Amino acid sequence: MVLFCPTSFSVKFSRLFGYNNGIGFSVRFTPYDRKSFSKGAVVKFDYIISNQGNGYSTTTGKFTCRTPGLYLFLLTVVSDTNWGYAIIVKNKDEINLALTTLEHNTNKKRYESGSTSALLTLKVGDEVWVKSGTHTSYEWHCNFNGLLISE
Amino acid sequence: MVLFCPTSFSVKFSRLFGYNNGIGFSVRFTPYDRKSFSKGAVVKFDYIISNQGNGYSTTTGKFTCRTPGLYLFLLTVVSDTNWGYAIIVKNKDEINLALTTLEHNTNKKRYESGSTSALLTLKVGDEVWVKSGTHTSYEWHCNFNGLLISE
Amino acid sequence: MVLFCPTSFSVKFSRLFGYNNGIGFSVRFTPYDRKSFSKGAVVKFDYIISNQGNGYSTTTGKFTCRTPGLYLFLLTVVSDTNWGYAIIVKNKDEINLALTTLEHNTNKKRYESGSTSALLTLKVGDEVWVKSGTHTSYEWHCNFNGLLISE
Repeated sequence: MVLFCPTSFSVKFSRLFGYNNGIGFSVRFTPYDRKSFSKGAVVKFDYIISNQGNGYSTTTGKFTCRTPGLYLFLLTVVSDTNWGYAIIVKNKDEINLALTTLEHNTNKKRYESGSTSALLTLKVGDEVWVKSGTHTSYEWHCNFNGLLISE
Repeated sequence: MVLFCPTSFSVKFSRLFGYNNGIGFSVRFTPYDRKSFSKGAVVKFDYIISNQGNGYSTTTGKFTCRTPGLYLFLLTVVSDTNWGYAIIVKNKDEINLALTTLEHNTNKKRYESGSTSALLTLKVGDEVWVKSGTHTSYEWHCNFNGLLISE
Repeated sequence: MVLFCPTSFSVKFSRLFGYNNGIGFSVRFTPYDRKSFSKGAVVKFDYIISNQGNGYSTTTGKFTCRTPGLYLFLLTVVSDTNWGYAIIVKNKDEINLALTTLEHNTNKKRYESGSTSALLTLKVGDEVWVKSGTHTSYEWHCNFNGLLISE
């Protein structure tokens, strides 16, 4: 038996079988490497755990949307900066931030973590990235994940 | 060529093309605005980033399920309250909480953040909302996101 | 009217209607119960909020993949351990960690929380679990969630 499909239908249909094509990325810093970024800089993650759809560029540090839809982004920051935070940015709009604060300076080296998420409707060409809110030293366990939820 | 579909099929099918219709919301407080909620109160987010499906009401502060399925909720709280927390609640059941603790009072104004998530199976009419665990002062970067994962 | 489908097609198709079958779990500790795990141990969550697809085992403390695809995992740790962390592990690979640090010991009992997430491509038989990074005392509001995003 055969399924009859108009061409445009079958194209969309093939996508259905891969659902949303599993578009998503998971990035981090190179193990044991620490990075500092100044206020306003793009926090460039250089270590890719997964990058289905190749939307994330380690060169620009930005995710570029090629498939429009609803996306979820998750950010975790680990830092020993006294007042550190990083912001999930859509194009130029600051959405949500992950905050790490150490309450006071001690001789002991301490770290703190902060997480946040953002659910964003993206169109083709939209960019999502992480901006350093202050001059912050980032520990390598920071991570940034993004994934297509639905087209 | 034509695809033959029984009516009920085509209805479901149209939904497939929008996948899960991209049902989801992302809410926050109005920028620069801070809110205090007393113990047990509904934490009402008044600033909508996205609200696909119109499930979240800024009037009640609650998400009401219209499409049954598996949903993911993510909560981030930013506060300067000494012992602050907020709880993701399904109807009347407390599920998971996001905690912020400042270890001691200082003259310096400090903030801390806490995040949590919950994966919940919802039926039509179920409500999911955020309850203030203690009398807590919430900074405007708090955010609450919910999305349909699968029907 | 009828939709003609080859058998293999219809099998996949039935799965489409349940989308990704809503595979996902949400686990925690038994309310009011606290758990300690030594460094390197599997953090076994014993209280199931949901376990669609029965992928999570409270016996082993591990999620076993039966449907290959892209999965999202979210972990929140609440602890009063001075330097506590827990790691999302895929088979034997440490992926991302959730960190809780209390900056100094006081007489007051304090808790802190940390969260993280991981987006992982899994094949059948892959296991994802939480490893205790240090000897850590876990408060019952810790939670671990995993869900299939796309096949």
